Amino acid sequence: MNLAQVARLLAGFAALLTLAQVVPLVFALAEPATERLAPVAGFVGSMVIGTIVATLLWLAGRRSNGETFRKEAIAVAGLSWFLAGLLGALPFVWSGLLPNPVDAVFEATSGLTTCGATMLGSGSNAAIADVPRSLLLWRALTQWIGGIGIVLVFVALLPAMGVTGKNLLSSESVAVGTDSFQVRAIERARLVAVIYALLTALCTVLLVAIGGYGWFDAVCQAFAALATGGYSTRASIAEFDSLGGEIVLTVFMFLAGASFAMIATHWRSGWRCAVALARSGEFRMYALVTAAVVGSVTFTLVSRGLPFGTALRQASFNGVSILTSTGFATADFQVWPPLATLVLFCAMFVGGCTGSTAGGIKQVRLLVTLKLVAYTIRHFVRPKSVERLKLDDEVLPASTISTILCVVLLWLVCVVLSALVISLDDRLNFVAALTTSASMQGSCGPALTLVDPFAAADVLLHGGTAPTLAATANVGPFGGFGELASWTKAVLVFQMVLGRLELLTVLALFAPSLWRR
Amino acid sequence: MNLAQVARLLAGFAALLTLAQVVPLVFALAEPATERLAPVAGFVGSMVIGTIVATLLWLAGRRSNGETFRKEAIAVAGLSWFLAGLLGALPFVWSGLLPNPVDAVFEATSGLTTCGATMLGSGSNAAIADVPRSLLLWRALTQWIGGIGIVLVFVALLPAMGVTGKNLLSSESVAVGTDSFQVRAIERARLVAVIYALLTALCTVLLVAIGGYGWFDAVCQAFAALATGGYSTRASIAEFDSLGGEIVLTVFMFLAGASFAMIATHWRSGWRCAVALARSGEFRMYALVTAAVVGSVTFTLVSRGLPFGTALRQASFNGVSILTSTGFATADFQVWPPLATLVLFCAMFVGGCTGSTAGGIKQVRLLVTLKLVAYTIRHFVRPKSVERLKLDDEVLPASTISTILCVVLLWLVCVVLSALVISLDDRLNFVAALTTSASMQGSCGPALTLVDPFAAADVLLHGGTAPTLAATANVGPFGGFGELASWTKAVLVFQMVLGRLELLTVLALFAPSLWRR
Repeated sequence: MNLAQVARLLAGFAALLTLAQVVPLVFALAEPATERLAPVAGFVGSMVIGTIVATLLWLAGRRSNGETFRKEAIAVAGLSWFLAGLLGALPFVWSGLLPNPVDAVFEATSGLTTCGATMLGSGSNAAIADVPRSLLLWRALTQWIGGIGIVLVFVALLPAMGVTGKNLLSSESVAVGTDSFQVRAIERARLVAVIYALLTALCTVLLVAIGGYGWFDAVCQAFAALATGGYSTRASIAEFDSLGGEIVLTVFMFLAGASFAMIATHWRSGWRCAVALARSGEFRMYALVTAAVVGSVTFTLVSRGLPFGTALRQASFNGVSILTSTGFATADFQVWPPLATLVLFCAMFVGGCTGSTAGGIKQVRLLVTLKLVAYTIRHFVRPKSVERLKLDDEVLPASTISTILCVVLLWLVCVVLSALVISLDDRLNFVAALTTSASMQGSCGPALTLVDPFAAADVLLHGGTAPTLAATANVGPFGGFGELASWTKAVLVFQMVLGRLELLTVLALFAPSLWRR
Repeated sequence: MNLAQVARLLAGFAALLTLAQVVPLVFALAEPATERLAPVAGFVGSMVIGTIVATLLWLAGRRSNGETFRKEAIAVAGLSWFLAGLLGALPFVWSGLLPNPVDAVFEATSGLTTCGATMLGSGSNAAIADVPRSLLLWRALTQWIGGIGIVLVFVALLPAMGVTGKNLLSSESVAVGTDSFQVRAIERARLVAVIYALLTALCTVLLVAIGGYGWFDAVCQAFAALATGGYSTRASIAEFDSLGGEIVLTVFMFLAGASFAMIATHWRSGWRCAVALARSGEFRMYALVTAAVVGSVTFTLVSRGLPFGTALRQASFNGVSILTSTGFATADFQVWPPLATLVLFCAMFVGGCTGSTAGGIKQVRLLVTLKLVAYTIRHFVRPKSVERLKLDDEVLPASTISTILCVVLLWLVCVVLSALVISLDDRLNFVAALTTSASMQGSCGPALTLVDPFAAADVLLHGGTAPTLAATANVGPFGGFGELASWTKAVLVFQMVLGRLELLTVLALFAPSLWRR
């Protein structure tokens, strides 16, 4: 491990994140005086510290020979989110918005991992309506940066270093990054970033034109949608109450959960890009799962008395939002019937496609798992038959399959372990501990808790928020995580990064052999 | 597939199950007149039908050449539990105890799969206190027969036919059963049965001597404990309120969850049998998991104000009961703190060792999964390292590992799918659907549902049963499954057999290629 090189790369990350704060700072300076003071102080203070940290890291790494190999790439990817979470939290602390540092780190990490779970509006923290707009912009910006960041890490950084192979399928391919490969990776990364920015701009324009949003709200909501983040500029996106806006957001959340990497690959072929997407096994799985989620939720809502139109609207928006790990919500889905909440709970695990900003285990891993399960049953009946598993007409090597199964199982193990740990927090119950853990690891955002069953039917039909039972924290779509204990929040911060980097990259940080020369 | 041979073997199963009813019939004849009439009518009617079915199956199979191969073994194993569930239900229907045939089939299948979930005392069904003793004996007997049945299927039938390999690790080994192998398998099966009977007798005697049980109660409870079944002769085993009895039952549940197969292998070596058990990786895992379950539950109970002695007593008995998939309960653990209920929920998945009567995924599969997860992380850091996974000093072949991971994932898929289906039942909520599915598939018995949080603290400290929320069914340890819809019960019956036969044997029944010649 070349620690100097790691420090040097992390210095770049710190500098970029510090530089990004120029945007909300300029915005803050243009605000009326009452809204200006605290945020400006926050951003300036934060940028000073960020600059110091970046400089120190650069000094530590200035002697590096500039070569990055597999181990360095893993360390940088694993550490950068933690570092960014700390630096990104500074404006929240220094502006006085979130005086508890743990809360601020939670908020920044939740943004940068595109999780979208918030501290605001719960516990003793300010409600979103009282937050200065420049800080709301910073929240949205952390998500947008985190979204493009994760795509670039998985599309360019890790594959170029031979850490993950094609389609993230494998951690096995050890092709050492040749120069030409690295050049192509950089080329591809630039294209992905351009597409990401163009789609964000398109989403913003459509939100204004069709959804009737103001420009500020449209930009922030588009940032959160394309990053599948879920931070809103209101207490809940339901406040906009705009059907057009919901349709635009649903479409862009779905696109963000598909594959930016694949769009970049087929970008030049124009319409055939869509054909290529539709032909990929993972995208078909994604479309099928989306349809299943929306269909089953619509069915259960209709069965409980909602008109079909309303049911479809709520199911589409909230279903796609949870499956793509965005976390926007237009309904307090904690009151939905058990089938609907179970479906949402499962969706938190699955997530979107590889090469997207969505979190979760990813559709391709679900697809391979299901293929292998079907194969195991066939093989059990006819043990002498020989068969090779294929994905998009390519044979899957046994080592790739084994790694995929392991990551899926490891995902479940981590969710269960975290649920056990955070269930020690008195403010969480059985359901809340389980779903919070799944939601944080899947970069989703809202979780579920138990609500008063007698209020549930009324809330289901007429909207609103159902009270939770026995004074437990409302970690649902209209709630927040501010009431939890500080240690719980710290565990969740770790889990957000763990899930965002698909486990292995973070867990590898604990392997002593990573740090040896 | 030689259907005639399958019919012939199933005829044997039907005949055995019919013959077994002689025991409760004789018992019923010795009872006072008021307790005699209905049960005697039930058993006689049932035995007549059982004889007819056995004869018809024998007639259908009389032309068979008597050779059993892999496919026939799978079909017999898969079908026998369904057939036994139907035949075993007849005494409950004909005696008028459970007039709804679905309820009766549920009760018999729950007995034969050693699940232990009951229809009695819930819905419109009779309370256990009002059930004639001969029918209680039949319930206990179904468990005892089911317990030895499952061990023999996995220790003798399937391995002899080359369906499963050593330690049930694999479905890959296709060693065609040689004659000498089959002779050894029969020899081994006989020894396992003898040990099973001896341990049952010992448990009975100890329950009378130490626990202060009457002979009838002792026999029935010993049947249920050694089979890890969980049917009691009282509404709950808590009614005996005997510390000695609880200690005896805890020890024998733990033994029943260890490996009868391994005890049989090392039987002749006396004390070294215990050494061999302690040396096996699976048994160590089992002991470790048991300690973890009991320890964590004790800790949470103490933290909520229970005295240490009481907490340890409740945690040991109920923890071991759930982990070994027995299902006896001395406390309404639905009111326990979230950590304790989450631990119990996880225990429902894991179960005991292979070659035991316990259900669940089995400890060895958990062990291999954890080994592989650790290996994946190491391999991610150092992809060029070559390493072979070992279990008890033997290298695990890649195909075995892959099958194990698939079975684990398939287990989770089945639990989730069933939970989604049964959540359509209005009487189940999010928690109840999820835990009922896990409990039935793991042959455990009791599930969890939401209880009134305001009553919970009181019940935790002073005992009793907490009311459920919003009139949902109490599927917990002191409840029953009688209030569910008939179609839900049918789904659960299927799932009990599915889990009991470790998925593949039952799912193979749906593969058309199994039925081809």
